[in-house]
Amino acid sequence: MKRHPITRESGRYFLTDLIRDEVDFRATAQSRGIRPPLPQKPVAPHSRIIRLPDQESWLIPPCDLVTAMANRESRRKFTTGSLSLDELGFLLWATQGVRQELHPAAILRTVPSAGCRHPLETYLAVMRVEGLESAIYRYLPLNHSLVQEREVENLGLRLTAATRGQAFAGQAAVTFLWAAIPERTEWRYGDASYKVIALDAGHVCQNLYLACQAIGCGTCAIAAYDQPLVDELLGLDGDEEFGIYLAPVGKVAR
Amino acid sequence: MKRHPITRESGRYFLTDLIRDEVDFRATAQSRGIRPPLPQKPVAPHSRIIRLPDQESWLIPPCDLVTAMANRESRRKFTTGSLSLDELGFLLWATQGVRQELHPAAILRTVPSAGCRHPLETYLAVMRVEGLESAIYRYLPLNHSLVQEREVENLGLRLTAATRGQAFAGQAAVTFLWAAIPERTEWRYGDASYKVIALDAGHVCQNLYLACQAIGCGTCAIAAYDQPLVDELLGLDGDEEFGIYLAPVGKVAR
Repeated sequence: MKRHPITRESGRYFLTDLIRDEVDFRATAQSRGIRPPLPQKPVAPHSRIIRLPDQESWLIPPCDLVTAMANRESRRKFTTGSLSLDELGFLLWATQGVRQELHPAAILRTVPSAGCRHPLETYLAVMRVEGLESAIYRYLPLNHSLVQEREVENLGLRLTAATRGQAFAGQAAVTFLWAAIPERTEWRYGDASYKVIALDAGHVCQNLYLACQAIGCGTCAIAAYDQPLVDELLGLDGDEEFGIYLAPVGKVAR
Repeated sequence: MKRHPITRESGRYFLTDLIRDEVDFRATAQSRGIRPPLPQKPVAPHSRIIRLPDQESWLIPPCDLVTAMANRESRRKFTTGSLSLDELGFLLWATQGVRQELHPAAILRTVPSAGCRHPLETYLAVMRVEGLESAIYRYLPLNHSLVQEREVENLGLRLTAATRGQAFAGQAAVTFLWAAIPERTEWRYGDASYKVIALDAGHVCQNLYLACQAIGCGTCAIAAYDQPLVDELLGLDGDEEFGIYLAPVGKVAR
């Protein structure tokens, strides 16, 4: 991706909604009658798909909302414990799960998204999840399933490098890596898309923090990472899709 | 604030972490030994301060985390019901409450923030909260209190205008308006501050959605607003502090 200087002035401008007056919403892809981008990246033929436990079947202990909020904290030290597939299914549902499909362009999830565009894909670097071999997976919200994307040698070390030496990213049981497909939001909002994509990633990450509280896990979000290394690890082109936020998850000592 | 064009290319760049390689972190205010900005805006002398109920005293019904996540949805239709001060204190704690003060530059909250900088101030447009007259208030997280900032005539109509005609912002019992003080994050991260400030606002808003579930309330975040009208309503200069995200809250029919 070409570099674009960010200054104090342009960065602050980005956080305002002044851009909305600059956008010709009659010219967006949506207004021009172009079909919306796919809500979920397609799966390569012959991929290995793993169906995840869902709310009907998973065994997740009850957890009080206020207690979860009160005890949430950034956790960077994990035990060597594994996550169960129930627990992983719960974390993925909490962060990007589908609640209801109204129509193909309005798929409601456990988190809000500007214009219901849901521009994120969720990748997992799995180190210790029962029943899953260590590899990069991607969550398929429409199917509540995982697809195995690629096996990676020395995955933990690659994660440490991709997070500029934050070793806990490689020591986690599973590290969430969220990527943005900005076209999904641009389709409706044009150049007013970028701040809201970041807001959406924040929504998702907060639910991960809280969901971790229910299953004896902890996380600490990472926004300081090596962009090319993250994109390379996930096999993303860095333009149409690129990493935007990470969160290593592991079991924590109580 | 001066206008800065956002293009598809510069907007996508903003969402990456490529900026990190451009920032000289030895030159940040923190690295130069400058004291951090205040974590909470000072209160004008003789202001009216309202102490809020806290976790020790409020009456908030228990709420299961998974149920809250499963039932969260965007709500734009509110009853004419009021919020109690208990409920308002709970929503403010959930979104920006202080869990622990380690030292003046590390004040831990119910939500994470990049580098623990917590760049947001929370303003409330109060329409129907028991015991509070209709006015603009600001939350003081360090004191778990409200300060009355200003009385505003036709507050509901002003909110509708400030959200470009989204009438539910004025029909709510209370509308949350989050403002950013970017200097708090810039102090540590320089020009790498802006994406993470938006992520932080997303964290906060997700907790508001969930907290609403516990008290029979609903919300729907608003990112499409009239920047000058929001800043004027809150009395902000639009450069050092400006509105970045809104969320009207009201009681909802079950």
